[in-house]
Amino acid sequence: MQPLNLVKIGGNVLDDAVSRTRFVQDFAALPGLKVLVHGGGKLATAVGRLLGLEPQYVDGRRVTDRETLEVVTMVYGGLVNKQLVAGLQASGCNALGITGADGGVIRATRRPAGVVDYGFVGDLHGDSVNRSAMATLLKAGLTPVLAPLTYDGTGGLLNTNADTIAQAVAVALAPAYDVQLLYCFEHAGVLRDAADATSVIPTIDAGQFQALRNAAVITGGMIPKVQNALAAVSAGVRAVVIGNAAALQDLATGGGGTRIV
Amino acid sequence: MQPLNLVKIGGNVLDDAVSRTRFVQDFAALPGLKVLVHGGGKLATAVGRLLGLEPQYVDGRRVTDRETLEVVTMVYGGLVNKQLVAGLQASGCNALGITGADGGVIRATRRPAGVVDYGFVGDLHGDSVNRSAMATLLKAGLTPVLAPLTYDGTGGLLNTNADTIAQAVAVALAPAYDVQLLYCFEHAGVLRDAADATSVIPTIDAGQFQALRNAAVITGGMIPKVQNALAAVSAGVRAVVIGNAAALQDLATGGGGTRIV
Repeated sequence: MQPLNLVKIGGNVLDDAVSRTRFVQDFAALPGLKVLVHGGGKLATAVGRLLGLEPQYVDGRRVTDRETLEVVTMVYGGLVNKQLVAGLQASGCNALGITGADGGVIRATRRPAGVVDYGFVGDLHGDSVNRSAMATLLKAGLTPVLAPLTYDGTGGLLNTNADTIAQAVAVALAPAYDVQLLYCFEHAGVLRDAADATSVIPTIDAGQFQALRNAAVITGGMIPKVQNALAAVSAGVRAVVIGNAAALQDLATGGGGTRIV
Repeated sequence: MQPLNLVKIGGNVLDDAVSRTRFVQDFAALPGLKVLVHGGGKLATAVGRLLGLEPQYVDGRRVTDRETLEVVTMVYGGLVNKQLVAGLQASGCNALGITGADGGVIRATRRPAGVVDYGFVGDLHGDSVNRSAMATLLKAGLTPVLAPLTYDGTGGLLNTNADTIAQAVAVALAPAYDVQLLYCFEHAGVLRDAADATSVIPTIDAGQFQALRNAAVITGGMIPKVQNALAAVSAGVRAVVIGNAAALQDLATGGGGTRIV
């Protein structure tokens, strides 16, 4: 199977022009098949505020009302996505910027309103990712650049977590490609000691994860990240690497970061 | 050669939710290969104003400064494009929403600053449209939905007239497909009498155009529209039809509107 690097880049990296430019060049230089999934960063909140929208959170999760959906469609699907594509094209990468609606690549279900209604938020299911549509784009020599938006199949767009999209695409492509999933953010990896940037844990498997979690080394938002990574590996993804966006080249070739195996 | 309908839809039609929904359904129902090019409408101006940008014009032409480029990238490349795509997908059309940067489909040159600097505005040249990239998307069963944005090849996006994009794509595809170019707007066609909506001129060729222009029947903004249409026909496009978006089905099958031959 052909190797394929699927890179998720976080919003914090994109918010900074210098780190974004560097990332674009590094990603463009990765050899072989690749897919980029990007988050949104603070820009959507900033644009929303300028338009008079104050972000609403319930239990730490953002609520996507109709106006917020329009803002994220503009900012993630338009500005962030197209600036990345223009930069990648200038660096020799034949990028194609899309949302899940384009080519029908990722169909989601609006999260049911329970005690909380999160609004226009899409949850993915086992067959959300259209494998053949993704394969068609890859075979055409294109590098899909996915904004964190999906569609409901009845005309609506849905705000969808970029980490979740990256994982779902990686798992969907695993039967056809030798997929390595790289989560790039502003830290060097999963740290043994949050105060020590050099304390990166080089590898984590399922057993080690339980031990690290029991010892409260892995806590908070890192727990679902590692759990999802382990699930991706169980589902056929060769490896999941969590590491610093500035070290993308090393992460892709097995150096640095935390490898979930 | 396979028939291909290339439809340009104006911003005014998109600004109205009812006419937009109807257009989406009618376009989705067109048989065979097709491409959609959309304008932006008043939404970009409205969003720009909310963000504190007042539109600037020189000689009736909009100036695209950096902030305005960001707004049109959000509104045309994000909101308008993705809402069209989600609607088309729901109507059974496998739409793929892109700008000229995506897949490198339309590369433009920034208009040189002369007496007036129009800012980040892209002009097209003979080889601006990447024919093979467009053909690849069409062969994959996708319907490209083009926002009126192009790229400069050095990392920048450029605001580009949607009519111009539609014409350039039609001409570029003419050697490989039997292309019919449909300009859809809110009028029934080129009118003999602007006050009489039923006075549609059914066909115009180069000779008739000169006569109609000399007689001041065709005036103002309609002059370059018809000139461009005649140029497209000279360059191999089978026919250019100018007509009402609400009559798309008829226009595509040779009924109604003004045919430039």
